[in-house]
Amino acid sequence: MKDTKIPYKIYLDEKEMPTAWYNLRADMKNKPDPLLDPATGKPVTAEALGQVFCRELVEQELNETDAYIPIPQEIRDFYRMYRPSPLVRAYCLEKKLGTPAKIYYKFEGNNTSGSHKLNSAIAQAYYAKNQGLVGVTTETGAGQWGTALSMACAYLGLDCKVFMVKVSYEQKPHRREVMRTYGASVTPSPSTETEAGRRILSEHPGTTGSLGCAISEAVEAAVTREGYRYVLGSVLNQVLLHQTVIGLETKTALDKYGVKPDIIIGCAGGGSNLGGLISPFMGEVMRGEADYRFIAVEPASCPSLTRGSYVYDYCDTGRICPLAKMYTLGSSFIPAPNHAGGLRYHGMSPILSQLYHDGYLEARSVKQTDVFEAAEEFARVEGILPAPESSHAIRVAIDEAKKCIETGEEKTIVFGLTGTGYFDMTSYQKFNDGKMSDYIPTDEEIAASLALTPKF
Amino acid sequence: MKDTKIPYKIYLDEKEMPTAWYNLRADMKNKPDPLLDPATGKPVTAEALGQVFCRELVEQELNETDAYIPIPQEIRDFYRMYRPSPLVRAYCLEKKLGTPAKIYYKFEGNNTSGSHKLNSAIAQAYYAKNQGLVGVTTETGAGQWGTALSMACAYLGLDCKVFMVKVSYEQKPHRREVMRTYGASVTPSPSTETEAGRRILSEHPGTTGSLGCAISEAVEAAVTREGYRYVLGSVLNQVLLHQTVIGLETKTALDKYGVKPDIIIGCAGGGSNLGGLISPFMGEVMRGEADYRFIAVEPASCPSLTRGSYVYDYCDTGRICPLAKMYTLGSSFIPAPNHAGGLRYHGMSPILSQLYHDGYLEARSVKQTDVFEAAEEFARVEGILPAPESSHAIRVAIDEAKKCIETGEEKTIVFGLTGTGYFDMTSYQKFNDGKMSDYIPTDEEIAASLALTPKF
Repeated sequence: MKDTKIPYKIYLDEKEMPTAWYNLRADMKNKPDPLLDPATGKPVTAEALGQVFCRELVEQELNETDAYIPIPQEIRDFYRMYRPSPLVRAYCLEKKLGTPAKIYYKFEGNNTSGSHKLNSAIAQAYYAKNQGLVGVTTETGAGQWGTALSMACAYLGLDCKVFMVKVSYEQKPHRREVMRTYGASVTPSPSTETEAGRRILSEHPGTTGSLGCAISEAVEAAVTREGYRYVLGSVLNQVLLHQTVIGLETKTALDKYGVKPDIIIGCAGGGSNLGGLISPFMGEVMRGEADYRFIAVEPASCPSLTRGSYVYDYCDTGRICPLAKMYTLGSSFIPAPNHAGGLRYHGMSPILSQLYHDGYLEARSVKQTDVFEAAEEFARVEGILPAPESSHAIRVAIDEAKKCIETGEEKTIVFGLTGTGYFDMTSYQKFNDGKMSDYIPTDEEIAASLALTPKF
Repeated sequence: MKDTKIPYKIYLDEKEMPTAWYNLRADMKNKPDPLLDPATGKPVTAEALGQVFCRELVEQELNETDAYIPIPQEIRDFYRMYRPSPLVRAYCLEKKLGTPAKIYYKFEGNNTSGSHKLNSAIAQAYYAKNQGLVGVTTETGAGQWGTALSMACAYLGLDCKVFMVKVSYEQKPHRREVMRTYGASVTPSPSTETEAGRRILSEHPGTTGSLGCAISEAVEAAVTREGYRYVLGSVLNQVLLHQTVIGLETKTALDKYGVKPDIIIGCAGGGSNLGGLISPFMGEVMRGEADYRFIAVEPASCPSLTRGSYVYDYCDTGRICPLAKMYTLGSSFIPAPNHAGGLRYHGMSPILSQLYHDGYLEARSVKQTDVFEAAEEFARVEGILPAPESSHAIRVAIDEAKKCIETGEEKTIVFGLTGTGYFDMTSYQKFNDGKMSDYIPTDEEIAASLALTPKF
């Protein structure tokens, strides 16, 4: 017997929360191609990965067989601090649009880090602690990942060293201060603390840094320091695995009310939130139990799925991390400076790349100004100020709901609302002042960047 | 049969949410003294109040007899967008402190305005809309109230005109942009738009404004404009009434698990959140059904309860609003510039003043640096970055929990966590850099300000 009236917000009981992450690769017909060692061009070994990443995380990264991986109790306790996150029925938005569609969104912004990143940050920090490590290093650009990781490390008493792209460090002092409040040390990158940083500073004096450079510094800081490892906030299989907590909760909440989605939508940068949201549903598709449409939404300024190539490429601009087979714009691709917020990654998670390649996943690219228009429309009726990243999903959800007005179809649309935009008001101001512009890379720019991908 | 295991977060079902606000004055033995008309020195009439405030709100302001006032359906629908708010069992904080005390907090920061202010903003906007008005005016200092009101007005399609103290307008551009994103017009005060603003500008060229001046402008803008009324975010009886949704939800959640609090703690500026939190519990005390300790926490830099006088005083620095009998430091009192965040009001809600005067409510003042220390300790284990205002309550909750370590008592402590600190990172930075200082006004300063209160 199912409830018929759906509340505005569906909160699961704590006992309904997932006790294991779902490993989609176990059910995928075509598994993603393996990571390659940049030194040998051969599949990277667990031993080599273990120099950089924590032991248990390496196992998760390479595990293609276990469909469920238990969530350790300490992580489940932490999840209970801010989860279950609400699955919201967007009654107010539906009414505003006048659509017969039923719109739901899974809201991951109700924690201080402001995004879904915390789901993986606590897992990665936990395994580091469990391995007896002293601390972890990472890089951060927009700052959501660094914030999430510093929260997780504060909770576990683990040292946290964040290399923050210098231009962000200076332009986003508030993000930096949240990390410091959580006890992290935040270093503007490039810095004189690492060989990589010193080299870049001598070659490009006055540079404001890049994500690629910050990754190089964070990895170097981890491998040259006793008791440290490097952690990464997206792209990797392990990160998508941890993020399945989003999709598992969503599915349990929908099942509870007998709701079956028609379309599931998420924004995609490195792909961790979208992968986490769709995994349990995609698993049903793989097992022939159900059918859904899945849409990845990416910025027109960084369109890796819609305009990239499916090839082996470096995961980092510095070319020191393993190579992944993925949709990529080339590791030297940098989105135009007018692009706001995250979703700036040149590639896409190998799992999502494989799914897209095999036709299970659609992709759509949207323009920045259209995204902020959707963000503002959403904020005014749903009462949540969305992050620019999350607003890519809002844009397409609204577009699909508007199609239903024309067709009269009562489609059920579910999208992921990954975070809040409190630290993005400079971009909102640009939009409010009519000073925001769009930039779409030319075919030549993308081709030039892609020409530099390695041949494997 | 009560559940024995308490979850980390208690979320009520939507059907358990309150359908009426609780009007504590109906049960108070000594009612607060009436507001006085500054022109006549006599109790202000509904008619006079109706020039400035909405009709229904005037009725609520003066209503001392009805214990319950139904919440209109449209407001209840809006509440469902972001309420019920969680009552959190602070397991992580308890463990960190090693206290036998059981700590709970009612968290009101899970909405985009970032604080409890939205509970009254939507009510006031609703009654304005219902009266057929075009819009409302208000002032804002730190910006939480202005943000909440602009959200509420955006939802109802009501014009919202915010006078923002000029220094905040310039120093907190992000707060301003949130309001603009919600469609409000935000004017730095003093402005040339009002008589009051022009007068102050000519007398004090280059002034950065004050809350008193912004109130004068907002009131003038309301009464000189067809179809507008002025709204206020704290102090008034009506505002405390709307905020009882906090206390009613808290009580239902505690009752559900058979928990009886020993101490209930809240920060107090104008008093609306504390009044809202304690009202249902105080009602039980008034009716002889239960006994609790209640603690109001105020900043040592603006100690209206602990060091003020209980007299009639102006509610606004501009001396145009009605007079209230309350604990006050004098309407010309201005907290030291080094004081961070809100809780800067010179007086205290007449209801809370009466309760304090009659011995039902304790008060404690705390130093700013001690508050930020508690905020940081809380943030690191509970995963929420608290507003400086809310952190006053955290300070005293931790102090009380530490006393339990010494005495071995398993006291149940409930406190109100009114909001998040995303827009207060400049203050956190000062604290992180060791540059935050305390200021406690001298007896002479307070006496000088109190000497200017009117004699009634």
